[in-house]
Amino acid sequence: MSKVGIIMGSKNDFEIAREAVEILKEFGIEFEVIVSSAHRTPERTLEWAKTAEDRGLDAIIALAGAAAHLAGVVASETNLPIIAVPVSATSLNGLDALLSMVQMPGGIPVATMAIGKAGAKNAGIFAGQIIARSNKEVAKKVAKYKEDMKEKVYKDNEAVQEML
Amino acid sequence: MSKVGIIMGSKNDFEIAREAVEILKEFGIEFEVIVSSAHRTPERTLEWAKTAEDRGLDAIIALAGAAAHLAGVVASETNLPIIAVPVSATSLNGLDALLSMVQMPGGIPVATMAIGKAGAKNAGIFAGQIIARSNKEVAKKVAKYKEDMKEKVYKDNEAVQEML
Amino acid sequence: MSKVGIIMGSKNDFEIAREAVEILKEFGIEFEVIVSSAHRTPERTLEWAKTAEDRGLDAIIALAGAAAHLAGVVASETNLPIIAVPVSATSLNGLDALLSMVQMPGGIPVATMAIGKAGAKNAGIFAGQIIARSNKEVAKKVAKYKEDMKEKVYKDNEAVQEML
Amino acid sequence: MSKVGIIMGSKNDFEIAREAVEILKEFGIEFEVIVSSAHRTPERTLEWAKTAEDRGLDAIIALAGAAAHLAGVVASETNLPIIAVPVSATSLNGLDALLSMVQMPGGIPVATMAIGKAGAKNAGIFAGQIIARSNKEVAKKVAKYKEDMKEKVYKDNEAVQEML
Amino acid sequence: MSKVGIIMGSKNDFEIAREAVEILKEFGIEFEVIVSSAHRTPERTLEWAKTAEDRGLDAIIALAGAAAHLAGVVASETNLPIIAVPVSATSLNGLDALLSMVQMPGGIPVATMAIGKAGAKNAGIFAGQIIARSNKEVAKKVAKYKEDMKEKVYKDNEAVQEML
Amino acid sequence: MSKVGIIMGSKNDFEIAREAVEILKEFGIEFEVIVSSAHRTPERTLEWAKTAEDRGLDAIIALAGAAAHLAGVVASETNLPIIAVPVSATSLNGLDALLSMVQMPGGIPVATMAIGKAGAKNAGIFAGQIIARSNKEVAKKVAKYKEDMKEKVYKDNEAVQEML
Amino acid sequence: MSKVGIIMGSKNDFEIAREAVEILKEFGIEFEVIVSSAHRTPERTLEWAKTAEDRGLDAIIALAGAAAHLAGVVASETNLPIIAVPVSATSLNGLDALLSMVQMPGGIPVATMAIGKAGAKNAGIFAGQIIARSNKEVAKKVAKYKEDMKEKVYKDNEAVQEML
Amino acid sequence: MSKVGIIMGSKNDFEIAREAVEILKEFGIEFEVIVSSAHRTPERTLEWAKTAEDRGLDAIIALAGAAAHLAGVVASETNLPIIAVPVSATSLNGLDALLSMVQMPGGIPVATMAIGKAGAKNAGIFAGQIIARSNKEVAKKVAKYKEDMKEKVYKDNEAVQEML
Repeated sequence: MSKVGIIMGSKNDFEIAREAVEILKEFGIEFEVIVSSAHRTPERTLEWAKTAEDRGLDAIIALAGAAAHLAGVVASETNLPIIAVPVSATSLNGLDALLSMVQMPGGIPVATMAIGKAGAKNAGIFAGQIIARSNKEVAKKVAKYKEDMKEKVYKDNEAVQEML
Repeated sequence: MSKVGIIMGSKNDFEIAREAVEILKEFGIEFEVIVSSAHRTPERTLEWAKTAEDRGLDAIIALAGAAAHLAGVVASETNLPIIAVPVSATSLNGLDALLSMVQMPGGIPVATMAIGKAGAKNAGIFAGQIIARSNKEVAKKVAKYKEDMKEKVYKDNEAVQEML
Repeated sequence: MSKVGIIMGSKNDFEIAREAVEILKEFGIEFEVIVSSAHRTPERTLEWAKTAEDRGLDAIIALAGAAAHLAGVVASETNLPIIAVPVSATSLNGLDALLSMVQMPGGIPVATMAIGKAGAKNAGIFAGQIIARSNKEVAKKVAKYKEDMKEKVYKDNEAVQEML
Repeated sequence: MSKVGIIMGSKNDFEIAREAVEILKEFGIEFEVIVSSAHRTPERTLEWAKTAEDRGLDAIIALAGAAAHLAGVVASETNLPIIAVPVSATSLNGLDALLSMVQMPGGIPVATMAIGKAGAKNAGIFAGQIIARSNKEVAKKVAKYKEDMKEKVYKDNEAVQEML
Repeated sequence: MSKVGIIMGSKNDFEIAREAVEILKEFGIEFEVIVSSAHRTPERTLEWAKTAEDRGLDAIIALAGAAAHLAGVVASETNLPIIAVPVSATSLNGLDALLSMVQMPGGIPVATMAIGKAGAKNAGIFAGQIIARSNKEVAKKVAKYKEDMKEKVYKDNEAVQEML
Repeated sequence: MSKVGIIMGSKNDFEIAREAVEILKEFGIEFEVIVSSAHRTPERTLEWAKTAEDRGLDAIIALAGAAAHLAGVVASETNLPIIAVPVSATSLNGLDALLSMVQMPGGIPVATMAIGKAGAKNAGIFAGQIIARSNKEVAKKVAKYKEDMKEKVYKDNEAVQEML
Repeated sequence: MSKVGIIMGSKNDFEIAREAVEILKEFGIEFEVIVSSAHRTPERTLEWAKTAEDRGLDAIIALAGAAAHLAGVVASETNLPIIAVPVSATSLNGLDALLSMVQMPGGIPVATMAIGKAGAKNAGIFAGQIIARSNKEVAKKVAKYKEDMKEKVYKDNEAVQEML
Repeated sequence: MSKVGIIMGSKNDFEIAREAVEILKEFGIEFEVIVSSAHRTPERTLEWAKTAEDRGLDAIIALAGAAAHLAGVVASETNLPIIAVPVSATSLNGLDALLSMVQMPGGIPVATMAIGKAGAKNAGIFAGQIIARSNKEVAKKVAKYKEDMKEKVYKDNEAVQEML
């Protein structure tokens, strides 16, 4: 059974993380959630990362703001695919978190999504796409999600015609 | 048999893409390479994306510079995981390509790596991590790669002691 | 009879697009409006672009936020002049959309306007300037618009004198 | 007979402007070139802009670096479509010129292209696309240019296959 | 009798310009205010600049937002010292206006102040400093202003001690 | 007799400062030059600033790179007009020096020029414009300089015609 | 007895400085607070810096916004460790203050913290870490603070589990 | 006996680190140097950090480029003062490393210096300033260094007078 781990550096990030949670529920993918900081609870974070594969995780979503080291720190201790979501948590609007996540040096990849809620939603979908490689049920859900988005755009188009 | 597709918007990007190619060879992962632009050969690009899964691809690495739409355009036509590598191809040093790739709106994820060679190398490793979920042979190679990096750091440390 | 197409990636962009709509109405230029995404409804978007000239369009205004690929994708399938309006839709204040639009690689031009409402208004005027090349009626309206702006500045100047 | 005006703020910009010149020659579009600064020769610049339409121009390409006011100043005195090319002429790599051109306030549009040579080439193509609206000969050249680009990408793809 | 001209591109800038007005009043320096745009009323702007010295002006303060060409355009037509104040009028927070003003090419100086109200206040003080070179009365006022600021800081310091 | 002070934070800045020196010589304005740092020789810097007016200075040009505090520190101890030139001395290309100079808080103006050589040249011209308010000889030189620039542009224009 | 000096450029910065004050109280470290500006009260600022060591200070925390010269100016007159906190006080969101503080040229270090409240809190902790080198009582408090943060994260984690 | 630890993420950073080494030698401060990565050798890095105080370190200098997590990771495991030096190692010129270091969230301070060699030199001096609080010998060296810098500026000033 596939499973995704969601780790966030601060309780405040949960508002963003919820976007990923909703997607995973929609895809029928199990998940576990933990608040654990790269800096304030480094040992717990590393322990969680090291044992992630043994706990049955297939991918990890890491959310953090400011100098967002969480995804990189987790990536240092596991070979699972790490999906990073930069959170806008300072006056720099998330540019700090984005660069702290995406500019990983060669050797330790961190797959970075957009800043904020759009990124968290996409992290959930991307986790689904990874799991879909070996899980047909999830693959169908991922495909259906894409189809539903199309329908939504068609409806939005009709709604805008009314506004003219 | 697992396979990765590498698509780049311009022949110039091959110098960067080679970093991913080397990793995939090291991991024993098959791959195909195509130069196809989101803007200059849109139909070929879309056709390539649409048929990617049927051709047996498990993940796609897309490299592009400037207004780098390639990864997003490919992502629009397949549910395979898309890994994006921004290339520094203008006077803005790759910041344009980075934002054009990473800031994807909710619904269509693109997993973005660092700008340039480090990002291309990591794209190769990340593709390996995805494939490793269902391929033990690749999983071993990925783990070995990480171990080898450690050794390299230990040796670098010794080399620096000599320089003092 | 001249006609302009307005395409936007999301219903939310209509608030911005309205600025262009108002100008086109003022210039007496026909237009059609569509909500269609580069990523969520790629086929419809491409079909719309490919058939744009046959539907009688003379210019296309494309609005999008975040990783704003819409204008480039439309430009890939038509030789009509494409006018792009970056929308501020993320925490990066539209800088992401601006760079995603303006930094088009050589070969596929996208004429980029300012971020947001000022840009949408200018997109409408610019479409008018293109059409004015072969339509005297529109040319007069464009010229009159410029004259009216002057008057407005003169009045604003008088208003400010009162405030001293 | 269609004609394009190319104005640049400094002789140094000609290296960039040449990209537009080559395209216009290829499209068989007549053009005139002038070095005239918004700041150092304001009257000549304004006179040139005011009389542009009477001299038979259909579109204007303006290139400038640093605080690039040239396109906006020209736009203030003509209703012709103005296409702006930011030049990287300072330590800020053209970001200054880009923002000085693209962020025009509502009322006076300036259609901005990418920084540097890619932008200049696209300015030439975009001028061609405007003229193509009423000139079938140019329309054919524009279409052929796009087809040729495709061929070039196909050949680049073959070349890269050799490099693997 | 010394006099300062204040020119702004839009009525909206008056809220910012008022900071300069207050300083000039405090320094007992005469001033005139005009709303005139570089783009929408270019002729009036240039005429105003050309005749500025004959009207008895000693310095000019120019305020503008977005692609802020106003100061440069005024500077092109007069040898009076031009003091520029970038206004935050777009989603880019005034960075566009700042670069459009400060990055003037060699030959036409524009003395740029901080973005917004602090800059407008300083523009007033700087105009006072210029005039003070040949006007002892103003020189005394400028010096007194500086002394008063010191007193204000001393008082603020006392206030903060109370807050501990 | 008018006189300008030029202060720079490091000997390396002299390459940039020379642009201002050349202009002042051309305008026949006396000047003194000092290398003195805001941080390494604060007392000398402050002493130099405090006595500047008594030494007969009419304006001060301050050049510095990195966290460029020099202009602000000088401005804190004199009421003379301070003209600041940001120097590109770090990997941030002068953006650090620009913001450190131009974003002065309300009360202590620093008139900022462009980054680097263009800015230093303009600092010289701007000093000339200030002195020209009370010195007809300098006023003539400033006016002549502007006329000469025009001639130069005309010649550049002719040169470019040859290149077509 | 250890003591920390807190200097801020404006009374408005006290809201931020309070974060450092709270930490120092918690650590049982004495402190003194002063509002004194690098630009408006330079002599008092320099005098305060010069006598800091004699007054028994062991470290100095300097807070400022905009062109934040305060930390550098204080550092120029003392060899005590200077900890700088950039404050977001302009439309540039503190990026100006950050670069004005952190990019100090070689020779005069200023230890820069994050923009705003997080930075002020960390400045207090960092001062504690310096003092802890020779004060066991403070060292225990610093260690306890870190332990308490861990507990807080554990509790936050439990709280988030409830939200699922 | 005081001692400083220098940790760098990559052998390439040693060229920068040497600036700090030279200063520590000049101050007569012992030091140890290690190449250890936050991501490639996380355990060694954490072990090194955890035992740093027991090994007699009084301060740690951490250098890293790109997504520079090293300083934060070290700070998570020790209460020693951490001094961070961002290295320019990517196309973003060190802005990525700067933000990854300086924007640490509240609770775990990292004292950030300028990007590159100036920052490394200042890291050495700052370490000296910390140690000088309890070591008179080092305090004298730090003070002498500052005096020597003054002399250097005086000489540079003389040299520039020759160049006029």
